[in-house]
Amino acid sequence: MKTVETCLSPELFNLFDIRGKVVVVIDILRATSCITTALAHGVGGIIPMADLEECRKYKEKGLLIAGERDGKTVEGFDLGNSPFSYMEPSLKGKTIAFTTTNGTQAIAAAQQEAAEVVIGSFLNKTVLANYLREQPNNIFIFCAGWRGKISMEDTLFAGALLQLLRKGIEFGNDACRLALSAYVSAQDNLQDFLSDCTHYKRLQNFGLQADIDFCLTQDKYPILPHLVEGMLLPKAIAG
Amino acid sequence: MKTVETCLSPELFNLFDIRGKVVVVIDILRATSCITTALAHGVGGIIPMADLEECRKYKEKGLLIAGERDGKTVEGFDLGNSPFSYMEPSLKGKTIAFTTTNGTQAIAAAQQEAAEVVIGSFLNKTVLANYLREQPNNIFIFCAGWRGKISMEDTLFAGALLQLLRKGIEFGNDACRLALSAYVSAQDNLQDFLSDCTHYKRLQNFGLQADIDFCLTQDKYPILPHLVEGMLLPKAIAG
Repeated sequence: MKTVETCLSPELFNLFDIRGKVVVVIDILRATSCITTALAHGVGGIIPMADLEECRKYKEKGLLIAGERDGKTVEGFDLGNSPFSYMEPSLKGKTIAFTTTNGTQAIAAAQQEAAEVVIGSFLNKTVLANYLREQPNNIFIFCAGWRGKISMEDTLFAGALLQLLRKGIEFGNDACRLALSAYVSAQDNLQDFLSDCTHYKRLQNFGLQADIDFCLTQDKYPILPHLVEGMLLPKAIAG
Repeated sequence: MKTVETCLSPELFNLFDIRGKVVVVIDILRATSCITTALAHGVGGIIPMADLEECRKYKEKGLLIAGERDGKTVEGFDLGNSPFSYMEPSLKGKTIAFTTTNGTQAIAAAQQEAAEVVIGSFLNKTVLANYLREQPNNIFIFCAGWRGKISMEDTLFAGALLQLLRKGIEFGNDACRLALSAYVSAQDNLQDFLSDCTHYKRLQNFGLQADIDFCLTQDKYPILPHLVEGMLLPKAIAG
């Protein structure tokens, strides 16, 4: 039987062995929601980068650069971390170098040893779950969190995914059960459940309620971003 | 308003600032349940030690030594990590040097900077909650976990405590909400909820169901162990 493990923070990542596993990176507010949105709207590819200054150098190479730190667009970058900004027709076919506070760090950590890195968000939940069920590898759900701390919105999406996967799969650690239990409690009213959570409140204070609402929309885009030689591209999916 | 934070793993501990806070150390299976049981049965004091070989040296100084690693008693030690072994009348008034895989490591990490370190278990839940409500400091709930990973039984007890504390207190991080939500789901049948969790299964496989049942007993002992100059002693509590 396949197993699934859930890692609720990058600070716990080193406790796990991800070799041969498919890693699902989750940063609901907002990196993985942006990546999914961008590729759904025809962006050619996204190069996820952990380091801000490394990312900035891609500007000189003629690429668009997107940078967010602490919830805000970095000065001098073309784009920030709002999914709406990735819907622009002018971005079609373009390659974007992308760095965020948490999500792109998690992708960087995972890409060395994973069998595959895929991107998860509420926006592509069911397509992702269907793929994970059908592919043969054990699964590692990797929540990006916030500066090392556990984030409720990432944990809830891990739980949403586990709810879809749980038949015929073994939970490899207690965090799976914890995430699933939180999602079962929250699923009828995600916004209400999240309303006293730290990053939700941080983005609300920045006036970003529309971003939050969008990132909690389920199954808007039937695409699956995956990492191919350092670039996030839409995966060709059967059906 | 007082705040409470919850740390679900020692690997996340360095992300928090515990100065001036009262730290509740939780290692339900079984270190903090043992400590509570021992002091309730008249053990004079417990010296928690992170290092096994340091603990062993106390034997030469004439103390009893208790040592557990990976769920088993360490060879050459007088006692292991079963609460039943701490009920012996012959232990009354004795001092025990005590080292376990996770719980005593967490106590060692907390004791440098906390305003106070207290010990939490289902066995002393209500006495602990009453004390936390009445004392003036912010609260830090520190789950010992299992070798850095999140443990469900520790998380559930954190949630049980948060359920008792939540009126008039602010949740300082998302892990509080996560633990509370898990406990609300689990409270009507803790055993069933824990039955597929890793350390529960590990101890069951060692034939330790009676230990598990005991450690999940609520409010058996109206005592509160706290740390005084490196020694765990029962705290004098009003009422």
